[in-house]
Amino acid sequence: MIKVAVVGASGYTGIELLRILHGHPEVEVTCVTSERSAGKSVAEIFPSVRDRYSLVLERLEPVRVAEKADFIFTALPHQAAMEVVPSFLKLGKKVVDLSADYRFRSPDVYASWYQPHLNPEVLRTSVYGLPEIRRDSVSDAFLVGNPGCYPTSIILGLAPLLRNGMVDHTSLIADSKSAVSGAGRGAKVDTLFCEVNEGFKAYGVAVHRHTPEIEQELSLLAGESVTISFTPHLVPMDRGILSTLYGRLAEEVSTTRLLEVYREFYRGEKFVRILPEGLYPSTSHVRGSNFCDIGLVVDQRTGRVVVVSAIDNLIKGASGQAVQNMNIMNGFPETMGLDALPLFP
Amino acid sequence: MIKVAVVGASGYTGIELLRILHGHPEVEVTCVTSERSAGKSVAEIFPSVRDRYSLVLERLEPVRVAEKADFIFTALPHQAAMEVVPSFLKLGKKVVDLSADYRFRSPDVYASWYQPHLNPEVLRTSVYGLPEIRRDSVSDAFLVGNPGCYPTSIILGLAPLLRNGMVDHTSLIADSKSAVSGAGRGAKVDTLFCEVNEGFKAYGVAVHRHTPEIEQELSLLAGESVTISFTPHLVPMDRGILSTLYGRLAEEVSTTRLLEVYREFYRGEKFVRILPEGLYPSTSHVRGSNFCDIGLVVDQRTGRVVVVSAIDNLIKGASGQAVQNMNIMNGFPETMGLDALPLFP
Amino acid sequence: MIKVAVVGASGYTGIELLRILHGHPEVEVTCVTSERSAGKSVAEIFPSVRDRYSLVLERLEPVRVAEKADFIFTALPHQAAMEVVPSFLKLGKKVVDLSADYRFRSPDVYASWYQPHLNPEVLRTSVYGLPEIRRDSVSDAFLVGNPGCYPTSIILGLAPLLRNGMVDHTSLIADSKSAVSGAGRGAKVDTLFCEVNEGFKAYGVAVHRHTPEIEQELSLLAGESVTISFTPHLVPMDRGILSTLYGRLAEEVSTTRLLEVYREFYRGEKFVRILPEGLYPSTSHVRGSNFCDIGLVVDQRTGRVVVVSAIDNLIKGASGQAVQNMNIMNGFPETMGLDALPLFP
Amino acid sequence: MIKVAVVGASGYTGIELLRILHGHPEVEVTCVTSERSAGKSVAEIFPSVRDRYSLVLERLEPVRVAEKADFIFTALPHQAAMEVVPSFLKLGKKVVDLSADYRFRSPDVYASWYQPHLNPEVLRTSVYGLPEIRRDSVSDAFLVGNPGCYPTSIILGLAPLLRNGMVDHTSLIADSKSAVSGAGRGAKVDTLFCEVNEGFKAYGVAVHRHTPEIEQELSLLAGESVTISFTPHLVPMDRGILSTLYGRLAEEVSTTRLLEVYREFYRGEKFVRILPEGLYPSTSHVRGSNFCDIGLVVDQRTGRVVVVSAIDNLIKGASGQAVQNMNIMNGFPETMGLDALPLFP
Repeated sequence: MIKVAVVGASGYTGIELLRILHGHPEVEVTCVTSERSAGKSVAEIFPSVRDRYSLVLERLEPVRVAEKADFIFTALPHQAAMEVVPSFLKLGKKVVDLSADYRFRSPDVYASWYQPHLNPEVLRTSVYGLPEIRRDSVSDAFLVGNPGCYPTSIILGLAPLLRNGMVDHTSLIADSKSAVSGAGRGAKVDTLFCEVNEGFKAYGVAVHRHTPEIEQELSLLAGESVTISFTPHLVPMDRGILSTLYGRLAEEVSTTRLLEVYREFYRGEKFVRILPEGLYPSTSHVRGSNFCDIGLVVDQRTGRVVVVSAIDNLIKGASGQAVQNMNIMNGFPETMGLDALPLFP
Repeated sequence: MIKVAVVGASGYTGIELLRILHGHPEVEVTCVTSERSAGKSVAEIFPSVRDRYSLVLERLEPVRVAEKADFIFTALPHQAAMEVVPSFLKLGKKVVDLSADYRFRSPDVYASWYQPHLNPEVLRTSVYGLPEIRRDSVSDAFLVGNPGCYPTSIILGLAPLLRNGMVDHTSLIADSKSAVSGAGRGAKVDTLFCEVNEGFKAYGVAVHRHTPEIEQELSLLAGESVTISFTPHLVPMDRGILSTLYGRLAEEVSTTRLLEVYREFYRGEKFVRILPEGLYPSTSHVRGSNFCDIGLVVDQRTGRVVVVSAIDNLIKGASGQAVQNMNIMNGFPETMGLDALPLFP
Repeated sequence: MIKVAVVGASGYTGIELLRILHGHPEVEVTCVTSERSAGKSVAEIFPSVRDRYSLVLERLEPVRVAEKADFIFTALPHQAAMEVVPSFLKLGKKVVDLSADYRFRSPDVYASWYQPHLNPEVLRTSVYGLPEIRRDSVSDAFLVGNPGCYPTSIILGLAPLLRNGMVDHTSLIADSKSAVSGAGRGAKVDTLFCEVNEGFKAYGVAVHRHTPEIEQELSLLAGESVTISFTPHLVPMDRGILSTLYGRLAEEVSTTRLLEVYREFYRGEKFVRILPEGLYPSTSHVRGSNFCDIGLVVDQRTGRVVVVSAIDNLIKGASGQAVQNMNIMNGFPETMGLDALPLFP
Repeated sequence: MIKVAVVGASGYTGIELLRILHGHPEVEVTCVTSERSAGKSVAEIFPSVRDRYSLVLERLEPVRVAEKADFIFTALPHQAAMEVVPSFLKLGKKVVDLSADYRFRSPDVYASWYQPHLNPEVLRTSVYGLPEIRRDSVSDAFLVGNPGCYPTSIILGLAPLLRNGMVDHTSLIADSKSAVSGAGRGAKVDTLFCEVNEGFKAYGVAVHRHTPEIEQELSLLAGESVTISFTPHLVPMDRGILSTLYGRLAEEVSTTRLLEVYREFYRGEKFVRILPEGLYPSTSHVRGSNFCDIGLVVDQRTGRVVVVSAIDNLIKGASGQAVQNMNIMNGFPETMGLDALPLFP
């Protein structure tokens, strides 16, 4: 049994951590923080947990948090995260950070898409926490940079192609569609119900900050520099990301054979499901679970492969993956607390 | 560990039973049946459970089912249920039936709203499975008639008033709003996305078949005959029922005092949450859980009490309550497999 | 051809006025104001009207507005409206005000639910603009207080019963359900997509500010004081209000006969549709139109009538009705610019 | 004033034709047919038009239809359309056909994606009715094959690039997302509310029947054979298609310059809106209108252009475009009956 803190608990990834950890047999949540809502009980800002959580949100003081908890999730905005994570590490705590602050190998890349990094030496010790690609590093890590939601769906969808050199690196396109919860719980006109409902749109075309994170990981998988066109879209629904991925095949291959390659690549993985030929994933079949579902087809007419991947953006794309990393870092079974089936419908 | 069958597993209450039972530590699902989909794997009709269920749907043959399972959930349409439930009982199995067939004390009432009952002597042995009202009977039962979704939300909302004689029995109105999953998985124009989305409507006004079930239980609580006006509505969402309940108070009472009466009535109940004064429930705060949330206010201007209750229609209104009954009937802790927090958002 | 100003054009009722007036053959919109968005073009804040409106939003200066326009719609928050409406009247302009500021006969009632009225003498000259009830007064008015969305649906639904003395005045209950656009375009957490979607809830139970407006008009129809229990709810959809109205019948009457009473009461009305027996309205069948659809049933079991009415809250519940009033005040055909059929689906 | 028949009026494109034509000053709808619903009034199957249409649906008998109408819209499934269209032509009527049956230049292409064509000689006389590309041919046509919804959004989005030879023809990808109304009004499990809501998915990947239609028109624009990867997706909303289009630029060009090319190409078009740099369309800003909104960006990092186009699938993607063609074929102003602004929200 470990004591866990959720730093920055008033957003959607925060409440999702609390929800998942409530069902985790080896975890007790002992501390939650929020600047906006300090002094309020968790149930005041998230009525869904009434009678199950009695914790009161505190202002963030790293030393106090560290006194109460063995393991820390930071669910803060970028910049805010790197201001406090080093303190937790110094106090001997392991951390999974859900912001962008510890996802990059290169402080320069981080600086060019975000702002200058405050502690590049800490950044260097962090591990990109996509367990299906980098489980061993995660198990030894003190600090894990939890992947972004879009990157998770895209990297898992393309990894077998790149690792096996089956696709032209200059041909990659990721057309991704995200539910609205990815935009957070801040009060903004853009995410009001009436602005979003019946409104499907693209945004951040060719300039979204998840691009360098995707390219970093794809390049590592490919063993050489990879660029990608990435277009995010907003779907009028609560949860889910579906990415449609295009690439020109480097060699001829059948759909059947490529599905075997994918099954082989993900053999033994509990959270990746490769669908049978002719089937494609839907966000409604992964919602509420830590699954990533993948379907694909080789289009002989155009010489392209089309891969479709789906996750719950708040679980495999955020809080579920964070708990998966926590499990690995603590030697718990990787699926502990994460074995709920999708909620359908 | 008991072996469980889900008879009629291809609808929304069927998949919800499978989802919940997957996380139940004392249950193994060993048999699933469906006439429509016999021969298909569960994952073919519900891709959400892929890789976690490998069962194949069978045609319903009671003897075969009874060979495979110790405990049986029947999630069949009314009429179809009473055609097979007696066989299971004769074979020594306990049953929770999710249809309307075993919810009524009087075969005549059943006959006047449905059709003649096929086995009134079996009906007489069944228990109406609303544990918060009738836990002791459930624990001794061999056959439980699992309550309807609307009745669950309405009876739980009004029980403290009626048991305590605080409301005029001729003044009761239940204005209920249900998500679309309550209409089932059959292919009908009326529940197509484009017919329902942006379309809020009433249906079955003054003639809905849940009326006699509600009046039966309210009358038992009141100790005399109670009638109610019941209006169901359809809400463009997947899950949830919210009932707004009106009654003229028999005596003057403050909101504060009435909330105490409710808290006292439901003391110790794990699945009923009485909200603080000034707060009202939302379906989004119970979705994915077995909770029933209740808020209320006394309107001094009109002498009425307004009670608002919310449940997830597929869980506390169907499959969750069925598992709760199964737990009681088998001596398991009542919350076993049912302690998931609501999925918000 | 008249010149029209929309004062307070940056909210949902503002854009809806612009949309409707674009199709009105006797109107040219010559002036739009918004404090928040002054200096921006209309298309910048409402991309839907790009290439059809080239107006730039101005700060509100009554004299300048009056120079540009013959007729004025004020779509401001209450309080803000009564600060400027008298200026427009003094400058000889006719006004339809969409706020609550000019809907009440009694400044005291207004004061007890809102704040002290700034110009009760102006209030006294205003007409409550529900044309189906008070067409003659509207045609002579210089100032019309445009009805609230909930009151429109409730008053139209109950008027024939009250005018004909067919219902017990102490028994009335209005259970109303509104789409989210009724909550406006302000940035608030409560109306974010993820807070509202899959979340049906009640709010303002027994304390909503539309209550006195409803009671004022019902009392005038009944010829004596009427109180009502009014419960508003929020539905996860863009547009529509559906009100379910309950009353105890003063005398026995059949559904068929009562429908005749309703048809007689609304004979000749272009925007009220009384549905055939057994049918009830849906918000999806009035969306995008100025219709109010009404269905009803007499429940012999309980001695109650249940009336269900549906409108598009932004049209018959706000901007459409405002244009209907403008038509009457200017001697245009009442349906001019308002004859679009509902957008289904 | 012309008399118009809508053949196959019981689907979503049928009701949309009736809705639009109700507001058309030069049209009277005199005949509606439906095999399924013959004998019912239009209001029985579409309550939204109650009191505005009193027509009764008839079985389809071409001679009777031709006696009643001067101009005919056929909104039938493919195959059913080509069984009757020649009869109407022989009887001297002009026809806009909304099925796929008269969209192809080559009967062989039609045969390989659908079935053998019943009257290839009639097919040869038909005109592909995308007015922005082929207005002159439409004005002389007796038979117009109304474009598919996906093709409309894709061809309008790519036309300026192909006509001007600015893009590599082997690099084109169309990732399209459609609302559910595109799937029609038939009772199918796949389009039930609970199957679609919160469920975003791809379907028909690399095999959708709109592919050859898109390639035919793109090839004509390019002057040589063009292939494209086309992936349709289903969005949980009523109306709208958004297509995200990718191509590798043949030459270097700035976003600003490319937007000028688009504005020049569509100069004078009333229904195509090219958005300012940095803005992208949303389906919610075209819903209920005949607009096609287009935004784009040149991604210098990858050498690709990304074009985003949005339409209302039932209007510019079907019934609105059909009326636009009818206007041209009859010498009416092209925007007649089609000038409604989008319904937002």
